[in-house]
Amino acid sequence: MEDRPGGVGVVRTYGYSGGVTFPVVGMVGGGQLARMTHEAGIPLGIRFKLLSDTPQDSAAQVVSEVVIGDYRDLDTLRAFAQGCDVITFDHEHVPTEHLRALEADGIPVRPGPDALVHAQDKGVMRAKLDAIGVPCPRHRLVADPADVERFAAEGSPGGRAGETGFPVVLKTVRGGYDGKGVWVVRDAKEAEEPFRAGVPVLAEEKVDFVRELAANVVRSPHGQAVSYPVVESIQVDGVCDTVIAPAPGLSDELSAHAQELALRIAKELGVVGHLAVELFETRDGRVLVNELAMRPHNSGHWTQDGAITSQFANHVRAVLDLPLGDPRPRAKWTVMANVLGGDYPDMYYAYLHCMARDPGLKIHMYGKDVKPGRKVGHVNTYGDDLADVRERAAHAAGYLRGTITE
Amino acid sequence: MEDRPGGVGVVRTYGYSGGVTFPVVGMVGGGQLARMTHEAGIPLGIRFKLLSDTPQDSAAQVVSEVVIGDYRDLDTLRAFAQGCDVITFDHEHVPTEHLRALEADGIPVRPGPDALVHAQDKGVMRAKLDAIGVPCPRHRLVADPADVERFAAEGSPGGRAGETGFPVVLKTVRGGYDGKGVWVVRDAKEAEEPFRAGVPVLAEEKVDFVRELAANVVRSPHGQAVSYPVVESIQVDGVCDTVIAPAPGLSDELSAHAQELALRIAKELGVVGHLAVELFETRDGRVLVNELAMRPHNSGHWTQDGAITSQFANHVRAVLDLPLGDPRPRAKWTVMANVLGGDYPDMYYAYLHCMARDPGLKIHMYGKDVKPGRKVGHVNTYGDDLADVRERAAHAAGYLRGTITE
Repeated sequence: MEDRPGGVGVVRTYGYSGGVTFPVVGMVGGGQLARMTHEAGIPLGIRFKLLSDTPQDSAAQVVSEVVIGDYRDLDTLRAFAQGCDVITFDHEHVPTEHLRALEADGIPVRPGPDALVHAQDKGVMRAKLDAIGVPCPRHRLVADPADVERFAAEGSPGGRAGETGFPVVLKTVRGGYDGKGVWVVRDAKEAEEPFRAGVPVLAEEKVDFVRELAANVVRSPHGQAVSYPVVESIQVDGVCDTVIAPAPGLSDELSAHAQELALRIAKELGVVGHLAVELFETRDGRVLVNELAMRPHNSGHWTQDGAITSQFANHVRAVLDLPLGDPRPRAKWTVMANVLGGDYPDMYYAYLHCMARDPGLKIHMYGKDVKPGRKVGHVNTYGDDLADVRERAAHAAGYLRGTITE
Repeated sequence: MEDRPGGVGVVRTYGYSGGVTFPVVGMVGGGQLARMTHEAGIPLGIRFKLLSDTPQDSAAQVVSEVVIGDYRDLDTLRAFAQGCDVITFDHEHVPTEHLRALEADGIPVRPGPDALVHAQDKGVMRAKLDAIGVPCPRHRLVADPADVERFAAEGSPGGRAGETGFPVVLKTVRGGYDGKGVWVVRDAKEAEEPFRAGVPVLAEEKVDFVRELAANVVRSPHGQAVSYPVVESIQVDGVCDTVIAPAPGLSDELSAHAQELALRIAKELGVVGHLAVELFETRDGRVLVNELAMRPHNSGHWTQDGAITSQFANHVRAVLDLPLGDPRPRAKWTVMANVLGGDYPDMYYAYLHCMARDPGLKIHMYGKDVKPGRKVGHVNTYGDDLADVRERAAHAAGYLRGTITE
């Protein structure tokens, strides 16, 4: 028996007998994104290896090969990377210099540090998006509360008349997520808080948006890319609550423009894997980039049940430089609703009612302890009638949380 | 925080903090059915524990909690069952007396030994199906080659004229699968072989069938059941090659009859979990039961990508006595083609061509070493045009095997 010729992007082989070269994907971080990436990788027959903080982490509960360790420690990362064909991420917190060290060791890191820094540092991200002509909210780094006041007095973007004005959005350039590290301030006095951590602070105009959208794309090392339908993302208290795919009523023109922007960002920043581009749709019919995430993303969870190929499966295919899967939707409408922790510590009993009420409901739980407000899972529903599909998702998420009791 | 009242069928709790009672499903056997059941269980947030012969087994590669041991040893089974809320199976080979011992220990065994024996012993199965009036090929236990000759000379079923005649199908009552333990003999001389093992032998008429069908149902302990569309199963050399869902051209009447038979068998035999009823469709428009399998089954693999709820997800829901998921198809046609081992030990490189050729192809590999003729995976395709969907599945399976090279 001889090996078939060819093959792309695989530099090491797992210890199967018989000369088999199914690769090992190493994922840093044991959260739900790693859990669902493992789930999506099982059908491909690849090996999945996890670096997790604790054995109780969401992904560590379901993965066979788990290394418990601290991703901030280079020796730990290096030891983990041994025997991996490629390293990818559940989160964007691995220090850039560590990623460069792994690359110097010959380990493919996807997305690589030069791309990932744009998802780690909002200052770098804004500078790059400006440079490639991607529309963003007006922004600049600010030095102190007085500088925030000056920012507010400066002109608004797009050549429109008048000053930016308060409120102003302030963000620490590193470390924020789900509304953390973000402040909306009404004056210089309120602007004091963000500077206390001693981290650089970015000021942004508070965009008068109609709604939030997300354009999700996946790109592979040799440059193939696929684009999912643009979705609407509904936030509650700074946390994603509901995603509707595709975004209802979005014009073909704006949809194509948002997808083109996301594909351009992926290419120009050298992203490999899944890229989520969170967007504001403005009242005057434009889109502005809010945030970037270079990993599977909450705004793409609907793809597990609503698209031909899920974001997780395509992320795995991309980091392995395999041809990407079809991103098209399988249903007219798919709705994802996040399940947050509520007053009931045990959501399992709630399955009985939810499953009996809606046999088409798709539950995705993360194996996390329930804490009030914590994302512990999500549900997907799909169908032809958007109102019905939304009601089913909202009911299940609310019932699991405990805010709906019938 | 208080526990929500209610809950069915869960007797133990996993060691989460916070009083969480997500159950632990213990599965005996580390084959691909366990691998895919684990994959389907991840979204439910349940714990999955595996008893596997070796750490290299298909499921053991991807499951976190694996016990390596011999399922034929009662002490091993008992130790494994500790901490499991329910025991279910990747195969039907666990001795009945061991299952009764686990039940006596208070462990729910699903399907239970009284049901499972019908999938373990073809003699018991035929006697029971006769008793409940389910149509089967003419059959009886035979003592020796001379008795096979007498069987062939006896009358054919359904009151039709003439003798059964040769060829006759001989089956050892226990231990057969994928054509093993089955002989088609043309005379008494050829009938000597099956008796050499000293196992009871069942003789069956060789049915003049048009094609093979499978009616798959899932039943839960409290009696809810769902029925998947009846599929056509195409065998090559006694091994399932292709499954088409739904069975093309099947009349509504025969489809409903086959589903009714499967639901009746599940109920009368007390099956819990997935039941596959393999059927012959005869030239005169009847269906006869060929085999039963009480576990997820090859004829139901199409449901992973072609049904709203897969057989694996519904098997998990059934053994946990959760409400069952919607079994309806998501596409007009779904085709499953098994991937058998061929001359190439490495199927990974073949992904490049298969995925590039067909971005909608769904590959399911089992992590098994390639051996010629061994089932190492399957592919699913779906769409509106049956000829196209079949061609895509056949091409991918052939290319992965190495019998198609372009």
